Amino acid sequence: MSDRRTGSDPTPPAASGEEAGAAEPVYWDDIEVGAVVEGGAFPFELGEIKDFASVFDPRPTHLDEQAAAGTFFNGLAASGAHTFAAWARLYWELTPGWADQAGTDISRMRLLRPVRPGDVLSLRFEVTDKKPYPLKPGFGFLDMEHDLRNQNGKTVLRMTCRVMIEQRSAG
Amino acid sequence: MSDRRTGSDPTPPAASGEEAGAAEPVYWDDIEVGAVVEGGAFPFELGEIKDFASVFDPRPTHLDEQAAAGTFFNGLAASGAHTFAAWARLYWELTPGWADQAGTDISRMRLLRPVRPGDVLSLRFEVTDKKPYPLKPGFGFLDMEHDLRNQNGKTVLRMTCRVMIEQRSAG
Repeated sequence: MSDRRTGSDPTPPAASGEEAGAAEPVYWDDIEVGAVVEGGAFPFELGEIKDFASVFDPRPTHLDEQAAAGTFFNGLAASGAHTFAAWARLYWELTPGWADQAGTDISRMRLLRPVRPGDVLSLRFEVTDKKPYPLKPGFGFLDMEHDLRNQNGKTVLRMTCRVMIEQRSAG
Repeated sequence: MSDRRTGSDPTPPAASGEEAGAAEPVYWDDIEVGAVVEGGAFPFELGEIKDFASVFDPRPTHLDEQAAAGTFFNGLAASGAHTFAAWARLYWELTPGWADQAGTDISRMRLLRPVRPGDVLSLRFEVTDKKPYPLKPGFGFLDMEHDLRNQNGKTVLRMTCRVMIEQRSAG
């Protein structure tokens, strides 16, 4: 795995220079504490913000510019659930070939700034710890710090989480 | 506010028996520690699970029954981001007329069980504490415990969070 990616190229690194899917999976064993992964570009268009909110979070803050102007947000902002979904997409894009994961346990998640129409989010995460999962041989834990940032470099969502991922022996 | 709702009626209670929007907003002042709110019915259809995942979390686990059968999940399951989005919808439905909220701070969120095609989720939450927000007059904090459950009463997502909501004086 590459320890650092920069810029906003949304292409998963595994697809560059080799057949996608042909690479050996990335297992728990392969991921080092201190690894930093960074990149992606997830755009929030006005219509998509409203479409998402109309299904999942139909508050005036997310649906109606005029009503939103009078709220704490001082204007229309994406649903926090939409922001979290963008995190899921960017995390997937930035971890091509990573083995099966499950059991996400978020020990802290904060929505620090509103996401506005026209914003483009990128993700930076760092692996802060790892250990085998004693109750489930063949899996291991990764502890991570995630920062989802807008195009101005300001963090909109910050999250500390633990994921369970396959060890090589389980592959 | 009603302290307890049961059953799976997905209609927001504010719309029953009165004009929606005509009621006085529910402010921080009106919400009591110990209040329990419960109800809603959010269905997960196979096509919707795949549609959501194709945009936000395109893993085989969420997109492809055959591939998912070979994973830790033992079958296709909804994206955790989709499950969280369903929480947002149910929380909105169960809090009709609540004043403007912002700044959701999640101190713990766990995805405890997979959500399967055909599952119908409901939400139960309890207000565990409240206090004024000293840095922003006119707002207050509510601490809450949320349990998102499937039709068998099993918790799929559990979350401890704090929201900021308007006080009556700010209305």
